[in-house]
Amino acid sequence: VKILNIGSIAFDSIKTPFGQAKKTLGGSATYFSLAASFFAQPAIVAVVGEDFNNAHKKVFQNRKVDLSGLEHKKGESFFWSGKYNFDLNTRKTLKLKLNVFADFQPKLLPHHCQSQYVFLGNIHPKLQMQVLKQIKQPRLVGLDTVDFWIERNLGDLKQVLKLVDVFVINDSEARELSREYNLVKAAKKILGMMSATPSLSPSPLSASGRGKTLIIKQGEHGLLMFYKASSLLLSPSEGRVPECIRGGERLNKKFNESNLKIFNLPGYPLETVFDPTGAGDSFAGGFMGYLASADKLDEHHLKRACVYGSVVASFCVEDFGTKRLEKLTKQEIQNRFAEFKRLTHFEIE
Amino acid sequence: VKILNIGSIAFDSIKTPFGQAKKTLGGSATYFSLAASFFAQPAIVAVVGEDFNNAHKKVFQNRKVDLSGLEHKKGESFFWSGKYNFDLNTRKTLKLKLNVFADFQPKLLPHHCQSQYVFLGNIHPKLQMQVLKQIKQPRLVGLDTVDFWIERNLGDLKQVLKLVDVFVINDSEARELSREYNLVKAAKKILGMMSATPSLSPSPLSASGRGKTLIIKQGEHGLLMFYKASSLLLSPSEGRVPECIRGGERLNKKFNESNLKIFNLPGYPLETVFDPTGAGDSFAGGFMGYLASADKLDEHHLKRACVYGSVVASFCVEDFGTKRLEKLTKQEIQNRFAEFKRLTHFEIE
Repeated sequence: VKILNIGSIAFDSIKTPFGQAKKTLGGSATYFSLAASFFAQPAIVAVVGEDFNNAHKKVFQNRKVDLSGLEHKKGESFFWSGKYNFDLNTRKTLKLKLNVFADFQPKLLPHHCQSQYVFLGNIHPKLQMQVLKQIKQPRLVGLDTVDFWIERNLGDLKQVLKLVDVFVINDSEARELSREYNLVKAAKKILGMMSATPSLSPSPLSASGRGKTLIIKQGEHGLLMFYKASSLLLSPSEGRVPECIRGGERLNKKFNESNLKIFNLPGYPLETVFDPTGAGDSFAGGFMGYLASADKLDEHHLKRACVYGSVVASFCVEDFGTKRLEKLTKQEIQNRFAEFKRLTHFEIE
Repeated sequence: VKILNIGSIAFDSIKTPFGQAKKTLGGSATYFSLAASFFAQPAIVAVVGEDFNNAHKKVFQNRKVDLSGLEHKKGESFFWSGKYNFDLNTRKTLKLKLNVFADFQPKLLPHHCQSQYVFLGNIHPKLQMQVLKQIKQPRLVGLDTVDFWIERNLGDLKQVLKLVDVFVINDSEARELSREYNLVKAAKKILGMMSATPSLSPSPLSASGRGKTLIIKQGEHGLLMFYKASSLLLSPSEGRVPECIRGGERLNKKFNESNLKIFNLPGYPLETVFDPTGAGDSFAGGFMGYLASADKLDEHHLKRACVYGSVVASFCVEDFGTKRLEKLTKQEIQNRFAEFKRLTHFEIE
């Protein structure tokens, strides 16, 4: 298994200005794994209820998602219903029932613990930490969270933040977490939280001490990726030696602003957006999937991963639920990747 | 004179969350001409009152702006006072006094009528048309407008739209003009308005029949430029032959969607934005200034013009009023242009 994802499988009832979908397959692990599957094989650890049937299972199997970590429980699956406003950027939750997800305890199988690329979806930061501790030698750990945990479990979140490499968050959450409106200022503060002094004894976990990357998603406006230039110059061949061994003093210093680099990718301009649900998770899936398949973590690959993530997310929103991802092809992804280049490219002279 | 700009010179009192400025030099022609002056010599046609003194004049003279078209009138100059909200994207007009600007009738001198690059700032569409009719052989005509004219003088606006090459507008105005929320749909409709059947007798004005370009500004999120691929492949050496002579049938058809191209440039991520006033006009000035200096109108130059416009605008907002533009240097512009490339650039493989 190259990519492990912990998250939710849910059923969503969605209303947008363009139509509606009732009890359609959704959840962060669903969108993440379908998106990642175009690049590398993802395994998910999640829980479903009795309403998850063979037809739903088939959606994952068609994309060769490893479902060995899928727990079946009595009762109903996580259910969410929401309504999007006219601008498709804001939504209102109409109903939310955690059901079997309420006391979800991720159970990792031995082969999960060997995963190199791990993405900790939006669950309780304590559970994210528990999962991370079981991974033997992660090469790249990504993390998602939402305002709920920022407001209720900030201490736990800050603990796990120190141990991850890539933190993917949306703009309003970045502002809430940093208490800064300006996103450059917010990013510096959050990278500071991520780079806090690691424990003195080097453990596999402090692998995350290497290069800290923050991706702030801005919905239709694309994303900003913030990263430290030096740390990314580390070639993959140097392996995952904890930074505290290689050149520890740097880590103990305050996050050094001077080598902060930014990559700014606009959103793909779509004429028809039907349903924004799952865009963020599809982005993360495409991002992690591409990195896992390339298995290189330098600046150029991180940027391309952002583009691939954005490409998959742009397809995701073209239809309700997982419909578009289910029929998506690798060729369509490559074509839109090339379009993204034309869309943003200019020559210096 | 290479660039002619018709617009306003005003005094602004500005409040932002970071401070305030009282009766500071502003207005669209001020920001436009200062921005353009880094690339080519701009001339402005505008009107001021008795409160416009030698110190204000010096600001323009220092940047070699041709003020021969500046009309001095009894009374006070256009005055605007406004307050920006915390997000700096929305603002409230507290006071607006047209004063001498109320019955502004642009008076062009003979050398103005020889201008090759013309930017019609936000004034009554009828006045924009009057000015345009006096220009002998414009090579590129740009236009700005605001919601006020869209709501009150749509017919006049549509007339002048047909005669311009580049229309620069912000996202909310594009939505209002097209009655489409989605910006790709909005752009298609507006390009359709711009490409409407020209008069049968080819006049210098239908020069604008060549390539229609629409730039939708999105504030801190950058811009979208929409253009027709084919029309821009026209090399400047082909000169300004009206399209209706060259291959007229195409023009009489509905705007052809198939060769619509898009350039998407994110905003420059700034850590300190003090005052967004003048950003749009600075963008237009940098955009037109670069094109006038390069004197090439192909796709690559239009894209670079967008970047130069964004660069100058990003400096403009770093301080109140024209302060930052007054001390800006060409080297700073070049450096940030290069940064923009690093910020947005990615390799296909």
